[in-house]
Amino acid sequence: MELSVRQKKIIEIVKDNEPISGDKIAKQLGLTKPTLRQDLSLLTMTGILDARPKVGYIYSGQTIEPLLYEKLFYLKVKEIMVPPVFIKHTTSIQDAITDLFMHDTGSLYVIDDDADFVGLVSRKDLLRATLNNSAIGTTPIAMVMSRMPNIISISADERVIDAGYLIMNHQVDSLPVVEKQDSSKVIGKISKSKLMNHFIASGYDMEKNKEQ
Amino acid sequence: MELSVRQKKIIEIVKDNEPISGDKIAKQLGLTKPTLRQDLSLLTMTGILDARPKVGYIYSGQTIEPLLYEKLFYLKVKEIMVPPVFIKHTTSIQDAITDLFMHDTGSLYVIDDDADFVGLVSRKDLLRATLNNSAIGTTPIAMVMSRMPNIISISADERVIDAGYLIMNHQVDSLPVVEKQDSSKVIGKISKSKLMNHFIASGYDMEKNKEQ
Repeated sequence: MELSVRQKKIIEIVKDNEPISGDKIAKQLGLTKPTLRQDLSLLTMTGILDARPKVGYIYSGQTIEPLLYEKLFYLKVKEIMVPPVFIKHTTSIQDAITDLFMHDTGSLYVIDDDADFVGLVSRKDLLRATLNNSAIGTTPIAMVMSRMPNIISISADERVIDAGYLIMNHQVDSLPVVEKQDSSKVIGKISKSKLMNHFIASGYDMEKNKEQ
Repeated sequence: MELSVRQKKIIEIVKDNEPISGDKIAKQLGLTKPTLRQDLSLLTMTGILDARPKVGYIYSGQTIEPLLYEKLFYLKVKEIMVPPVFIKHTTSIQDAITDLFMHDTGSLYVIDDDADFVGLVSRKDLLRATLNNSAIGTTPIAMVMSRMPNIISISADERVIDAGYLIMNHQVDSLPVVEKQDSSKVIGKISKSKLMNHFIASGYDMEKNKEQ
């Protein structure tokens, strides 16, 4: 459902002046009440406005579906990506684990001597590495990391629903956000936690709006 | 916006017979066309139905906002909880890590000799434990697990938005789903992954419906 410019104006007027009569809304718009009849009828039938007899129109606080859907799913990755924690490919497994705890993060991105992105390690990779290795103080992270091209990445202009789809289907904890032209340049990270927080926080915002 | 029973019936008739004229919809309902005028007008103005001149009504596939919101956020925890992996409090750290990989899960729930729930360990807890402990083959998991009452739990009848809110605010990977009367009885698990998958899969379903 797409609201017209006039319908959006009516909502703004009601928000600012509620309760307000149909006559007064028409007056503010420089129109006659019969001209607005269909708009007001749509806005009340959809539940966006409440019409109270002898009181006037009141804004119900309900948003409409396409706006909700877009806010949740069509947001760009760049809007919610976070800075990754980078480590050098020569870092020992033990130092990598320390970095993971120091930064309280779920994954580390590995770069080579030219600062190009070459791999990543998750908490799971590190746990596996500590089990099978008694020399974690000297083994470099490059021995146990996941490497390109086995790493799923995404670009900053894609939508959060696409990021979520990749994370879900490849069962990973995060995706490196890379430059479109050069996937060895990482500009951010989008994680499962960040995505879930986005959905939950947006859901709470909407619920609060409904209750107001 | 709440649709009336008659409006929902009209949508079903159009879905099954599109394109269909207003006259034929009225006939199927045993009503006259003027009686349906307001319903058809609401359903087209909201974009749920398309009215094509000389063709008839067509179902646009759009759902309406309160349905979307409820589907995403008001679903009960029991609808998407999964069975947890339980281990005994006497299990060694090393065996617990093996269980974690064997079941490909992110956390293990710990029970005592009476099968009461007494604690949990996450991947993060286990990684920390391996770093600080050289005797992981003999140290029992009870030494490193998080214990009640420091564990946040939820009941099966609460909503997924509440589960997500707890996971987000307490920065945990999952919540034990416990019996309302007895929080030592765990009946399921709701994880960050499961929640994100629920949002993403629902978003995809809706997008597919829109395109049809």
